[in-house]
Amino acid sequence: MVSLSNHILIYNNDMKEKFIKDSIYGLIKITDPFLEIIDTEAFQRLRHIKQLGLSYLVYPSANHSRLEHSLGCFYLSGKITDKFDFQHKNEFRIAALLHDIGHAPFSHVAENITKAFTQLTHEDFSKKIIGDAEIKNITDKYGLNTEKILDFISHKEVFGQLISSEIDVDRLDYLARDAYHTGVAYGVIDADLVIKAIEIKDGKIYCSGEQLPALESILIARYLMFPTVYTHHTVRIANLMFQDALYNLVSQGTIKAEEFISMTDADMLSLMKLHAESRVMITQIEKRNLYKMAMVFRKDDFNNLKRVYELKDDYKAIQEIQNALKRILSVQDGKVFIDIPEKPSFAKSNIIISEYNKPLEELSPLVKSLKAAEWNHWYVGIYCSKTEREKVSKAKDEIKKYLNSL
Amino acid sequence: MVSLSNHILIYNNDMKEKFIKDSIYGLIKITDPFLEIIDTEAFQRLRHIKQLGLSYLVYPSANHSRLEHSLGCFYLSGKITDKFDFQHKNEFRIAALLHDIGHAPFSHVAENITKAFTQLTHEDFSKKIIGDAEIKNITDKYGLNTEKILDFISHKEVFGQLISSEIDVDRLDYLARDAYHTGVAYGVIDADLVIKAIEIKDGKIYCSGEQLPALESILIARYLMFPTVYTHHTVRIANLMFQDALYNLVSQGTIKAEEFISMTDADMLSLMKLHAESRVMITQIEKRNLYKMAMVFRKDDFNNLKRVYELKDDYKAIQEIQNALKRILSVQDGKVFIDIPEKPSFAKSNIIISEYNKPLEELSPLVKSLKAAEWNHWYVGIYCSKTEREKVSKAKDEIKKYLNSL
Amino acid sequence: MVSLSNHILIYNNDMKEKFIKDSIYGLIKITDPFLEIIDTEAFQRLRHIKQLGLSYLVYPSANHSRLEHSLGCFYLSGKITDKFDFQHKNEFRIAALLHDIGHAPFSHVAENITKAFTQLTHEDFSKKIIGDAEIKNITDKYGLNTEKILDFISHKEVFGQLISSEIDVDRLDYLARDAYHTGVAYGVIDADLVIKAIEIKDGKIYCSGEQLPALESILIARYLMFPTVYTHHTVRIANLMFQDALYNLVSQGTIKAEEFISMTDADMLSLMKLHAESRVMITQIEKRNLYKMAMVFRKDDFNNLKRVYELKDDYKAIQEIQNALKRILSVQDGKVFIDIPEKPSFAKSNIIISEYNKPLEELSPLVKSLKAAEWNHWYVGIYCSKTEREKVSKAKDEIKKYLNSL
Amino acid sequence: MVSLSNHILIYNNDMKEKFIKDSIYGLIKITDPFLEIIDTEAFQRLRHIKQLGLSYLVYPSANHSRLEHSLGCFYLSGKITDKFDFQHKNEFRIAALLHDIGHAPFSHVAENITKAFTQLTHEDFSKKIIGDAEIKNITDKYGLNTEKILDFISHKEVFGQLISSEIDVDRLDYLARDAYHTGVAYGVIDADLVIKAIEIKDGKIYCSGEQLPALESILIARYLMFPTVYTHHTVRIANLMFQDALYNLVSQGTIKAEEFISMTDADMLSLMKLHAESRVMITQIEKRNLYKMAMVFRKDDFNNLKRVYELKDDYKAIQEIQNALKRILSVQDGKVFIDIPEKPSFAKSNIIISEYNKPLEELSPLVKSLKAAEWNHWYVGIYCSKTEREKVSKAKDEIKKYLNSL
Repeated sequence: MVSLSNHILIYNNDMKEKFIKDSIYGLIKITDPFLEIIDTEAFQRLRHIKQLGLSYLVYPSANHSRLEHSLGCFYLSGKITDKFDFQHKNEFRIAALLHDIGHAPFSHVAENITKAFTQLTHEDFSKKIIGDAEIKNITDKYGLNTEKILDFISHKEVFGQLISSEIDVDRLDYLARDAYHTGVAYGVIDADLVIKAIEIKDGKIYCSGEQLPALESILIARYLMFPTVYTHHTVRIANLMFQDALYNLVSQGTIKAEEFISMTDADMLSLMKLHAESRVMITQIEKRNLYKMAMVFRKDDFNNLKRVYELKDDYKAIQEIQNALKRILSVQDGKVFIDIPEKPSFAKSNIIISEYNKPLEELSPLVKSLKAAEWNHWYVGIYCSKTEREKVSKAKDEIKKYLNSL
Repeated sequence: MVSLSNHILIYNNDMKEKFIKDSIYGLIKITDPFLEIIDTEAFQRLRHIKQLGLSYLVYPSANHSRLEHSLGCFYLSGKITDKFDFQHKNEFRIAALLHDIGHAPFSHVAENITKAFTQLTHEDFSKKIIGDAEIKNITDKYGLNTEKILDFISHKEVFGQLISSEIDVDRLDYLARDAYHTGVAYGVIDADLVIKAIEIKDGKIYCSGEQLPALESILIARYLMFPTVYTHHTVRIANLMFQDALYNLVSQGTIKAEEFISMTDADMLSLMKLHAESRVMITQIEKRNLYKMAMVFRKDDFNNLKRVYELKDDYKAIQEIQNALKRILSVQDGKVFIDIPEKPSFAKSNIIISEYNKPLEELSPLVKSLKAAEWNHWYVGIYCSKTEREKVSKAKDEIKKYLNSL
Repeated sequence: MVSLSNHILIYNNDMKEKFIKDSIYGLIKITDPFLEIIDTEAFQRLRHIKQLGLSYLVYPSANHSRLEHSLGCFYLSGKITDKFDFQHKNEFRIAALLHDIGHAPFSHVAENITKAFTQLTHEDFSKKIIGDAEIKNITDKYGLNTEKILDFISHKEVFGQLISSEIDVDRLDYLARDAYHTGVAYGVIDADLVIKAIEIKDGKIYCSGEQLPALESILIARYLMFPTVYTHHTVRIANLMFQDALYNLVSQGTIKAEEFISMTDADMLSLMKLHAESRVMITQIEKRNLYKMAMVFRKDDFNNLKRVYELKDDYKAIQEIQNALKRILSVQDGKVFIDIPEKPSFAKSNIIISEYNKPLEELSPLVKSLKAAEWNHWYVGIYCSKTEREKVSKAKDEIKKYLNSL
Repeated sequence: MVSLSNHILIYNNDMKEKFIKDSIYGLIKITDPFLEIIDTEAFQRLRHIKQLGLSYLVYPSANHSRLEHSLGCFYLSGKITDKFDFQHKNEFRIAALLHDIGHAPFSHVAENITKAFTQLTHEDFSKKIIGDAEIKNITDKYGLNTEKILDFISHKEVFGQLISSEIDVDRLDYLARDAYHTGVAYGVIDADLVIKAIEIKDGKIYCSGEQLPALESILIARYLMFPTVYTHHTVRIANLMFQDALYNLVSQGTIKAEEFISMTDADMLSLMKLHAESRVMITQIEKRNLYKMAMVFRKDDFNNLKRVYELKDDYKAIQEIQNALKRILSVQDGKVFIDIPEKPSFAKSNIIISEYNKPLEELSPLVKSLKAAEWNHWYVGIYCSKTEREKVSKAKDEIKKYLNSL
């Protein structure tokens, strides 16, 4: 009997060289030290964290994991190290592999709760985990520089831009992978062509004008994926309810936000169902008995967008606003939710088109238009239970006034 | 703001007609009564049950759910009702949608534990759930005949053969879907061609000889998917460990096997981690610290294969054998596992080739060869912990003698 | 032996129902009268006309034919007739099947030569062929109205908009098909979703705002495919040389432009190689010994763009300009070519977004940006042989002055 | 303006490194000396030779060229040279690129005519062309060894087995490419996995038993593609008619068979239409007014299969038989055709499974079954015009007797 270690398809004699089958790229070759890192508990946890959080409520096939995405980034990072000549390539590839390792369960959903209680982002947690003994023992053993790994992740190293920023392995992978698994057509991009087309000079990414369409297509794919998948309104509602349940859990001391990074989606779900303070909300999500949108506010409804974003960044403030709205509007049945989406940034592109020595965002009208369009799908939503919708929706002016008074 | 109900992409005015985006077939049209059934708690539970159980340990992308598969079967069943003229088409489509609704968490993995304690199969549980109030209230409301639904599932109705048997929506969907999500090439089949090519006469499925390659390709796809995905040796080991943990949980009264059908994968995992009798095993699986194969027995090693299959069907007997082996071999560290795979049946094909009026399995040498080949990938495996492997593997004759004495 | 008629995969007993296998849509069902029309000589000629003309010089896989595209349009037209309720559906489907039947060899390349000598477009020739006995005998036999077919093609019938205009079977098919066969990623669109999303009211196409991304993605796919495939600079040069050879053939009476519509690509190539007046040019194309770009003029280089387009529409005038440039610049080796591309129109969209009752082009900043961007990839090119390039390229001012004096 | 040479997408500064976009593999990297060879007239001719000859009569999308296939083989050969350590890698890759360069128009269709008049195969012509000045000047310039190229093609060099034999770049490419362009599902294979899984020792190809399914799937894909595509009965009829026309052309001295290798599909078609001795037949093919099958003979109908294959290899003898049949059967309208297909060989596999040190064909029942099945789709067909079919089909015994008397 041929003996294979777990999850591995081919083992070439002598060399420690294994292959993992990926739905997007086919066989991904893994050697040490990467293999050892993949086998850590910290990395394996990503297997149990859905890449798209609660999006499976809308797209039944969106069950792919953050581990798949991380392996995909690792695969693409190999195309970068094959093409370019630079220092610390192994550290670069580990940075690609681990840049998302600090994600809480359900990926981005829990992020603002974490931040409210710890003041830390998932990148901060990624750095922490990379410095912890489990992974550090491996990188030390192979004589690798942990600082460099972190520098790639934080872009202190130039090539870190190719891990996550704009035209990078993170984005190239998630657009393709999310499209494949949701069945949505817009994420189809040509990663191979893009990587072949770019050059790095003096710390900046350059690309020939000939490949303008390839670059534009990536920015547009992302623009189209946002309303269709990433900020689909049903998912936004579910996220609000989920965050509320999670906030209660942490507020009441049932769990510490610092512990999220050792939990899986399933751990979090089961905890939520065990405890009274989160049970109602999570059960409603599971039954897709979701809150309803009562009204939306567009950009122009706000006097001070900067203030809106200060609030958004402060989930505890958001909870107070929500409680205040419930009180002001005399809502009996359930809560009132307010949802402030990310500030849109589809048009930022610092890639320099070689022939003109100007950034893409100045040269491409299409990219410029993304700037004009980016607030198009943006709205702040107010949500309440079905029974309260009629009452709440009538109070639009009152709510607007209140929000602008904060 | 356009208001959409959850998980739905398009809502055409007036008609209650919705579309779900599927990774395999694109848009799947759903109308009532199917929509109401999909929205039941019983059906939504399938969302949280992985189609391929623990296979994600080998294929990181194998995270698709039994809900996706059930929707896929429903989609294909519409091609059947469009083509053929028969009675009770709505019941037929519901049968396609619900034929797997009785699956325990992790799909097939828990099946023999369920059987050991309840003497029931997942089909039995499917029938039970279809008869329960939640679904029956809906079918009654639409004047549908529950008995007919069950008759389609149990093949009492001729067209039930097209739900699950040989050339059926179940197999056409899972081959394509499992291939798509694992990234394994062998499951690529032409479902459309096959459905167009078949005819039903006198309760039997006929097909023109012209489409022989299409039929052969399905049987072969399945044959190739077995060792590569469905019975991959790593998955088999993990399944053994999982079943052991589950058996302990039920034996000790922590949970009843009848309750499995209201649980999700996550529910079961968290229960396993909570309780001492299952915690060790499930933790080892999660860390992929798996038992090792100590030896294999092939078909010819057994005097009485019939007896082997009597034992396989009796998980309590299997536990006793495992305990006896541990005792006989003086194994200290962990358990000894024995794994008896399904009896292979790749070559059974009752489809009749019209021109010859003979079944495919008689006409196609390729299909006949599957009969000869089907024991090829079959083996009974004995597993133990790494530290005990050397000792156990030396006792092959002793174990063989013991097994043949049972 | 099962007897099948040519090119057909499945023949269902009794019904005259056949299936053709298509690389994009799988099995396409064909019944009479469509089958008889497909079997005409006029339609079969499309088999030998490349959909993308000389683009195979850049994309080796771009060998798909106009017959494939026409069958694809026919397939999609069936989705339209299934969805909408309107008169003359058979005529509509024939219009979809035959809308390109008047194409000369190499599709669009020969179009301005045809026009120079006949004042007719490929649509005019399509109408002529549809009125000719070969096809008219069939439509008459089935009691179909030839006038209605022509009305659909010319948009006198409202539903003709769905054959070719903006969101139509022509565009939905060619974007997908050209992407598939060139290997270029940008043409991936969701035809199914778009057809499901649109409605027709009062002669106009409506679409829910929910599906904005689907509509935008089609316009953008087309925008990206233009510079990458349809107006790739190498193809433009080859087209110029080809047109010159063809012009000579017709000028010297070797062939009449009216005869193009009974010729295949191969017929035209062999004619070109047989006759001295075209042989040099076509041999150079085949050896990819192409003319070189000497300079480009952008939109702002022209005083009077309207005049430029009058000239473009008059290929005889273009030939005179080219001869004049050769004389003025004392070019000895070969010709001087001027290439004026189509006036760009990527941003035109009259589809009305239901919720706002406004056309897409007013609502979508992305579509608006296409208007701003559409001149981006536009340039008038001047080409000459390699040996003359240095000399010619120095005369930019002189040529500009000359062009603006016309 | 960025200047690109023809057919090339990306030109990286300094390095002479270009990329061609392929529909199957994406970007194919081409450097010198390969680039110069691709640019030869001899290689570019392959652009105008359909990979699947007349199969487009059945599969409208089967318009891909032998140039695409040759570039695909070149691409896969790079995976071989990356993996294995052996001498003369550049010669190996050129062998992969040029192994089909000696094909006559319409690929295999003309092969037996060529052989009848020249006693040479397409491999012989490939060798001739590789030795001719156009290509030899390039290989000499780069110090490459022409003999080695030929040795790889003729398998005198061990690694030549990986160019064309059994598990080789030729087969891996054509199965995938023909499936993609016909739309037939059976050719889907995992080339990457297979190349990763094989080893070469002592001149033989080895593979781990773990990858048995991957190997089996390739042999089966080929087996299924034969009746569905490669020997589809309609294509066989068209081939017979085409060969007849071609035979007449050569017999009457209109063209020499040696000249085929400088002709394209279009050249041959136009020649056939120009000359009376071929015009009728080729016009009938174009109008798909094809001969009809009057009867088939199976393997057991022949006393002496060896003799049948002697005849098959002698097209002049075939013509005499056809003329004799016409005479014997008093056929007035058109010819009588006899079609003897290739001797089937689907089951030959010398690949050695490492664990057992035995060839695949001994170990795999599936592969063994291909041996049993290989005569299944084999038949000698007798064809005549529709008007004569009734008469001819009655003479089965007479024809059988006659054929067995030869």
